[in-house]
Amino acid sequence: MKALVYNGPCDVVVKTMPDAKIERPTDVLVKITATNICGSDLHMYEGRTNMESGRILGHENLGEVIEIGKAVDRVKVGDMVCLPFNIGCGFCENCERSLSGYCLTANPGAAGAAYGFAGMGPYSGGQAEFLRVPYADYNCLVLPPDAKEKENDYVMLSDIFPTGYHATELAGVKPGDTVVIYGAGPVGLMAAYSAVIKGASQVMVVDMHKDRLKLAEKLGAIGIDDSEGGAVGKIMELTDGQGADRGCECVGYQCCGKHGHEVPNLTMNNLVETVKATGTIGVVGVFIPEDPGAKDALAKKGQLAFDFGKFWFKGQKIGTGQANVKAYNRKLANLIHADKAKPSLIVSHELPLEQAPEAYRHFDKRDDGWTKVVLKP
Amino acid sequence: MKALVYNGPCDVVVKTMPDAKIERPTDVLVKITATNICGSDLHMYEGRTNMESGRILGHENLGEVIEIGKAVDRVKVGDMVCLPFNIGCGFCENCERSLSGYCLTANPGAAGAAYGFAGMGPYSGGQAEFLRVPYADYNCLVLPPDAKEKENDYVMLSDIFPTGYHATELAGVKPGDTVVIYGAGPVGLMAAYSAVIKGASQVMVVDMHKDRLKLAEKLGAIGIDDSEGGAVGKIMELTDGQGADRGCECVGYQCCGKHGHEVPNLTMNNLVETVKATGTIGVVGVFIPEDPGAKDALAKKGQLAFDFGKFWFKGQKIGTGQANVKAYNRKLANLIHADKAKPSLIVSHELPLEQAPEAYRHFDKRDDGWTKVVLKP
Amino acid sequence: MKALVYNGPCDVVVKTMPDAKIERPTDVLVKITATNICGSDLHMYEGRTNMESGRILGHENLGEVIEIGKAVDRVKVGDMVCLPFNIGCGFCENCERSLSGYCLTANPGAAGAAYGFAGMGPYSGGQAEFLRVPYADYNCLVLPPDAKEKENDYVMLSDIFPTGYHATELAGVKPGDTVVIYGAGPVGLMAAYSAVIKGASQVMVVDMHKDRLKLAEKLGAIGIDDSEGGAVGKIMELTDGQGADRGCECVGYQCCGKHGHEVPNLTMNNLVETVKATGTIGVVGVFIPEDPGAKDALAKKGQLAFDFGKFWFKGQKIGTGQANVKAYNRKLANLIHADKAKPSLIVSHELPLEQAPEAYRHFDKRDDGWTKVVLKP
Amino acid sequence: MKALVYNGPCDVVVKTMPDAKIERPTDVLVKITATNICGSDLHMYEGRTNMESGRILGHENLGEVIEIGKAVDRVKVGDMVCLPFNIGCGFCENCERSLSGYCLTANPGAAGAAYGFAGMGPYSGGQAEFLRVPYADYNCLVLPPDAKEKENDYVMLSDIFPTGYHATELAGVKPGDTVVIYGAGPVGLMAAYSAVIKGASQVMVVDMHKDRLKLAEKLGAIGIDDSEGGAVGKIMELTDGQGADRGCECVGYQCCGKHGHEVPNLTMNNLVETVKATGTIGVVGVFIPEDPGAKDALAKKGQLAFDFGKFWFKGQKIGTGQANVKAYNRKLANLIHADKAKPSLIVSHELPLEQAPEAYRHFDKRDDGWTKVVLKP
Repeated sequence: MKALVYNGPCDVVVKTMPDAKIERPTDVLVKITATNICGSDLHMYEGRTNMESGRILGHENLGEVIEIGKAVDRVKVGDMVCLPFNIGCGFCENCERSLSGYCLTANPGAAGAAYGFAGMGPYSGGQAEFLRVPYADYNCLVLPPDAKEKENDYVMLSDIFPTGYHATELAGVKPGDTVVIYGAGPVGLMAAYSAVIKGASQVMVVDMHKDRLKLAEKLGAIGIDDSEGGAVGKIMELTDGQGADRGCECVGYQCCGKHGHEVPNLTMNNLVETVKATGTIGVVGVFIPEDPGAKDALAKKGQLAFDFGKFWFKGQKIGTGQANVKAYNRKLANLIHADKAKPSLIVSHELPLEQAPEAYRHFDKRDDGWTKVVLKP
Repeated sequence: MKALVYNGPCDVVVKTMPDAKIERPTDVLVKITATNICGSDLHMYEGRTNMESGRILGHENLGEVIEIGKAVDRVKVGDMVCLPFNIGCGFCENCERSLSGYCLTANPGAAGAAYGFAGMGPYSGGQAEFLRVPYADYNCLVLPPDAKEKENDYVMLSDIFPTGYHATELAGVKPGDTVVIYGAGPVGLMAAYSAVIKGASQVMVVDMHKDRLKLAEKLGAIGIDDSEGGAVGKIMELTDGQGADRGCECVGYQCCGKHGHEVPNLTMNNLVETVKATGTIGVVGVFIPEDPGAKDALAKKGQLAFDFGKFWFKGQKIGTGQANVKAYNRKLANLIHADKAKPSLIVSHELPLEQAPEAYRHFDKRDDGWTKVVLKP
Repeated sequence: MKALVYNGPCDVVVKTMPDAKIERPTDVLVKITATNICGSDLHMYEGRTNMESGRILGHENLGEVIEIGKAVDRVKVGDMVCLPFNIGCGFCENCERSLSGYCLTANPGAAGAAYGFAGMGPYSGGQAEFLRVPYADYNCLVLPPDAKEKENDYVMLSDIFPTGYHATELAGVKPGDTVVIYGAGPVGLMAAYSAVIKGASQVMVVDMHKDRLKLAEKLGAIGIDDSEGGAVGKIMELTDGQGADRGCECVGYQCCGKHGHEVPNLTMNNLVETVKATGTIGVVGVFIPEDPGAKDALAKKGQLAFDFGKFWFKGQKIGTGQANVKAYNRKLANLIHADKAKPSLIVSHELPLEQAPEAYRHFDKRDDGWTKVVLKP
Repeated sequence: MKALVYNGPCDVVVKTMPDAKIERPTDVLVKITATNICGSDLHMYEGRTNMESGRILGHENLGEVIEIGKAVDRVKVGDMVCLPFNIGCGFCENCERSLSGYCLTANPGAAGAAYGFAGMGPYSGGQAEFLRVPYADYNCLVLPPDAKEKENDYVMLSDIFPTGYHATELAGVKPGDTVVIYGAGPVGLMAAYSAVIKGASQVMVVDMHKDRLKLAEKLGAIGIDDSEGGAVGKIMELTDGQGADRGCECVGYQCCGKHGHEVPNLTMNNLVETVKATGTIGVVGVFIPEDPGAKDALAKKGQLAFDFGKFWFKGQKIGTGQANVKAYNRKLANLIHADKAKPSLIVSHELPLEQAPEAYRHFDKRDDGWTKVVLKP
């Protein structure tokens, strides 16, 4: 089958790989019809992880079931399914508490598995023609009859929409709240969209890219351009000097200051500053335990110079980590099905698999207008 | 009246001060019969805060109401009352959500007020014969008839017992959980006691003082002596390599490494290490936004070199801040009244007010056996 | 002052009454500028309660503070304020947990007080020129500068909007949920509106009045006309035979069957039937402990022939009771202020106080188009 | 194999039945070493359900895995396992939210499956030598090495201990709460024990059997004998006229009044009366949608004459339904393992399978001292 393979830093290529196939009785095989490029693919693309060369990337996948294992009970051949990027077993201590992002079975010795991801187990990605899905009865979200017609919406349920939503859950966003979100990449945009859906009274999104801020405004948020600084002051002004009720980090360890160099503690310390006392902060931007490629001495060790004193004094809370997609994807699917949510609003490009390498290049440079790419193998 | 007054670093003195009196119609006046020295008094005592000379210390107070203001409705002369260390108004946005530790009224321009405390408003402390209590209908916990007999238990409801309990609430301790607590000072001991009351299956307490670890074991916990290091390994061993379900920080910014020098990020990074993935950490040890007296460059700015990457990767949560005493003191009073809790177990000394300066000296040095001092003015 | 006075069953009159005035140092005096007629006023109007003749009705009040008591701290003369219908003290066991609808102080011997309400204490109502507001620092919601301009929106914060919202809170409505609401009176409409604001995927409203169902659809819900029966079947069909995730009762003990006679258990048993297994039901329609005027033998004793077996078998939950307005009014005010909610959409009539008797007559008969009346004294 | 078979009302017999065996690749086969008789077995035994003759009873099972299906991943031959009475699939909408008692897969067309239970699917019970366990990776709780030694404790995790605990979860019991429990049968006793473990300040248990009340007191509760009436008054007195914070129903639809005749609404209406305003009630006693054998006309239809008016006026909440055992059994196992809980305290008889018929007879009559029977096949 054709697949997008990681060759080394800033080098991906589409080539022929062995066909994905059923390996265990609880697997199904899916013919991929839509698969996104994710911001976290870029960490691997840039060589900022320990990703092995030769592996297939792609963890935001949707397609049609074409074969099922002997022990599969619920999923049928012909079902259109969206696959959560995290692979859970459904029966470990974490999965049974709906913490499928921290499965203790699928990636032995660690908590959490994913398709085509550094450090998340041996699973191939879905930027390919076919994908093997383990523990399929647990992992497949079977889609309603409008699956084809709204494919670009439903594929967002694999990661980006639940991840943005997770940010607002970790932050505890409730109707009437004011919310500040750092980052207007696809995750930040989906966090803003989720906050709007939840009935926030004011959603502020901070970024330096004008095209992305425009999208944020289209989704119902207030865009705050920090390219010349001043975002902190602007947020305090918009919240009568109190700070926002809730904050979301949607950037991660490679966040950048004014002139584009990395300032790892920037977004977190700004969140502590611009969220009010007793407020809550949700962090879905990726931070990693070691980052040997970082310039900053603390960052190499996975540490931040964090304003812990101010954080404590304000009595704030932080929740972190990757989204447990299964905890949210059914209800978000309801919203898409009922035409109450349209996450495909952020899609900028729909491309064949062959053009994936070019898409990686543009997306990695944050080229103007390259917000979100859906590949159609 | 006689009162304990702060004169400057490591210098407190008992002297005659103007009598406390009713100043506003919502005040009451309390004759203090029991008032504790708190670990956070030591931050001020050591000159590690901006406490003004000449102020009366003491925020853990209990006594008898001897006069009430004209608008006081519920509290009566003769009532025995325990006063939460935090002073709330009862009607601001935070008090009405039970966040009385972050009152927006009692200390204008900040969130949170307290008796005799640096940066927490102009209120005098209760290490004195009399105390003025503002917003008395809201702040007084009226005690049951056994108040005199169990005075040393009920006085713990002013701060230390609810603060320890708050640590376990922020950490989300539930029946059957494993819990690790850093610090076996009075707060850590009360956190351990709270975890035991809540039905934790295993409560581990880390400290370097053998007398305090012994007390922890008396309260139902497992003491872990870190004076020669090794606590992290021991906790991992006791939890089958997983780490504890929940963790509590009960030490604060002056936490110390093996040879007694301050290592500000020690307890927080050990918590991230020894709490399991998806676990929750409650921080009630005091951290401050600026600490000009610190040796460490980050600490001066109130920053920690925090293992944020590991924290995020493990999908942990942190809750912080001072206890909202009123959120807990009624139910904890029930437990004392029903003989199901006896927090006075940690009291090591009961002394007259006159001996307060000596008590400060011993307690500040963590002299053997000086766990908790109750003053009886 | 002029006021609307209850004279006996179906008899209310506007007459001159002694001026409201400050009685205690914690009171303020409010000049009423908007005050609604509520569906629960009709229980009193119809003589179905033990309301005393000669009392002033009106518990949905908004106006300007014209005098403050000596102990009032926060509220100022000139403030525009909206008053929660329930009167809380701010310091009892229930108020301090945000359960201001069950205040133990304001109506001694009972849990809960209100203005101009049978069995809810001696307080006069606000369908009058002036209103005395007890515990004013706690009870007044001070409005933002757009208070005048959006008066008909903000006055809904006194009861109807928070009460509808409370129904959805008791029912646990979350984004993506399907919700069924029985009753399209003002409360049911506000429950539907709240569910829409919270991001429900499908909101179904059952009633027999076409004008009200039309309003429900305008607010984003699906109207289900039960005037010829069939609502249960329709809901099951719309939810693929599963029933709704959540249900709300917004009718109360005088609910009626097909030909207009009272069938007290109708809405509750239909809710059990049309809410799915494991679902939750919120009940804000009023049910009363005794109803001597009822025809039904059980109803006289305040009992329902309730489908408890089915309820248990489905593992459902029920939450009940009047709204704790203060728990919601700040955040809902934010939504009005930010133009994200416009509850005045349901206002059908804006009338001077003099026309109140006529308005009661029409509203009581559910005359076509009489959805919600705002009086302007 | 030998098994206890239901022959019709009040007639059970031990006889030879076809061996249980693996039927699907996700099954395991367990050799039963301990299996309890449950109070809900008695509903079937008495012929008060539609149980089919010829079926094997027994849903409280523990034993050793002797064979595993081809798709079983986690469970190994030789594992000692305790089986939740409810059978879940692990991947349906309810199981994935930890609501394994309402599985939509295992008993198609209904919500919830169980071993050897009327209306809960075709599964054979475990009062037998062997048991087939479906979806075994999801359903088996693998026990620690002390499983044999504490077999009578761990077997309680199959139902009775989690069910009692569930009552306290539905009721929202928190440290310091006062709790009233109706019923001192095994479930009521386990609810009382759970409330004690959770740190309740006062646990009151109402029953008419002196031997069971004695056991309740042994577990840390206050026994209230209602055999001559007066329980309601006693509870109000013990709670200063307020009623308890929380209440638990552990009796069910066959509850009886003073002279032993069934009064189906007795415990629920007494709970409404003796739980305070704003309090919460958990109902784990079984109520059924239809009870043709009942004398009471409402009961035949599964209805109660419920004090709904008082319930609403007090603003109470009710949670109902069977326990989702998997939501609790890991943490409760921790408590047994750490010697912090010993639920076998309620075991009165340990008998071979052969004596099961005799045990049913005594247990059904509530013969003195027959609290809980463990069978050892």
